[in-house]
Amino acid sequence: MKKEILTLKTSARTEFLPLFQKVQGILSGWGVKDGLCVFYVPHTTAGIFVNEGCDPDVIRDIQNTLDRLVPWQEGYHHIEGNSAAHIKATLVGNSRQVLVENGRLQLGRWEEIFFAEFDGPRTRQLILTFIDAK
Amino acid sequence: MKKEILTLKTSARTEFLPLFQKVQGILSGWGVKDGLCVFYVPHTTAGIFVNEGCDPDVIRDIQNTLDRLVPWQEGYHHIEGNSAAHIKATLVGNSRQVLVENGRLQLGRWEEIFFAEFDGPRTRQLILTFIDAK
Amino acid sequence: MKKEILTLKTSARTEFLPLFQKVQGILSGWGVKDGLCVFYVPHTTAGIFVNEGCDPDVIRDIQNTLDRLVPWQEGYHHIEGNSAAHIKATLVGNSRQVLVENGRLQLGRWEEIFFAEFDGPRTRQLILTFIDAK
Repeated sequence: MKKEILTLKTSARTEFLPLFQKVQGILSGWGVKDGLCVFYVPHTTAGIFVNEGCDPDVIRDIQNTLDRLVPWQEGYHHIEGNSAAHIKATLVGNSRQVLVENGRLQLGRWEEIFFAEFDGPRTRQLILTFIDAK
Repeated sequence: MKKEILTLKTSARTEFLPLFQKVQGILSGWGVKDGLCVFYVPHTTAGIFVNEGCDPDVIRDIQNTLDRLVPWQEGYHHIEGNSAAHIKATLVGNSRQVLVENGRLQLGRWEEIFFAEFDGPRTRQLILTFIDAK
Repeated sequence: MKKEILTLKTSARTEFLPLFQKVQGILSGWGVKDGLCVFYVPHTTAGIFVNEGCDPDVIRDIQNTLDRLVPWQEGYHHIEGNSAAHIKATLVGNSRQVLVENGRLQLGRWEEIFFAEFDGPRTRQLILTFIDAK
C-alpha cells in the first residue's frame, strides 16, 4: 500500500480543484502498475467527485445547482452556520476510487477528479492511497 | 486484478440498466473467489448505483425525483445543454463496489446494480474490475 | 479478506447510527494492520456516509434537508409507500471506504461513520470487510 497526504489550499467558499495532473505525477513517482487509487477527504465540509474537466461551465452549473438545492441559510440548527457545506459533502461523498493500469489513472475521455471545497477558503488535506492488485 | 469493459446501449435520455446478471456471469467466467468487484463509469453524464430491482416503480420514482430536483432546463451555463445530466451523475456517483464471496456478488435480497444513463440514448462503457483479496 | 456482518437496530423512520467505536473494536479484534475497510449496506432504503459526529445538530440538519428535498409523500408510484427512502439511499449511497493504518481507521478529526436509516424502525445489517494491502 502506498499513501500520500496532499495539502490543498482553496480560495473561495465553494471551489472545485482538479487533481488528475498532481495525482498522476505521484503515481508515476511511486512506480506502481495495476491497482486501485483511492481518494479520501478527511473533512466534513468538503467532498470529492469525478466529472467533466473540459468546460469550466460544467462545474459552475454543479456548484449553482447545489447552492439552489442546499442554500447557505435555511433555518439550520448547527451553530457554526456551515450546515449547507456538511450537507453538500454528504450528497457528493468524501471518497472516490479510480482504476490504475500500467501506472495510469483510467479516467474517461472527459473526466477530471475534483476536490470539492464547500466551506472555504481553507487549507485542506486529501489522503491518496494506492492498493496494489496483481 | 481482472478487468473487463462492458458495452451498454441505452435507448432513452434517462434509463437505468440492471447489471447483476451480466456481471455475475463475467465473474463466474473468471473463476474468481473472494474480493471486491468495482464498477466504474468513465462518462460524465452517467452514473451507477445499487437499489431495488424488483418493482420498476422504484427506479421510476428515483428518475422522476432527480428530474424534479435537477430539471433539464434551469438557466445552466454549459453550452452543450446537458448540465442536468452532469449534475445527476455527480449526485449519484460514478463508481460503486460490491463484495464477492465464493464467486458470488454479495447483494442484499432486493438489491440490483443499475447503470444510470442521464443523457441518452448513447453507447456507453462500464469498467468492471475485480480486486482479489485472500 | 476479513468480513463481519453487524446487526443494527433502528428506532425511528430516519435515524443515523454512529459506527466508529464498534467497527474499530472489530478491526482491533482481527489484529489487522494496513488496508481498506469497506462498509456495505445490503438494503435499499438505508445508506452510509461519513460526516461530523461531534454536534448532533449537523446530522439533524442533514436529515431535515433530505426530508425537504425528498418528501415522504410526493405522488410516488411505488406501492409500498417508501419511495422517499429508496431515493435518499440512492443519493447518499450504500457503501463507503475508510483507510486503515496500523490497525486504526484513518478518520479525520471531526469525522464519524453513520449508518443512515431512512425507513425504520427496522433490524438492519451492515457488511464490514477488510481488504489487506501490504
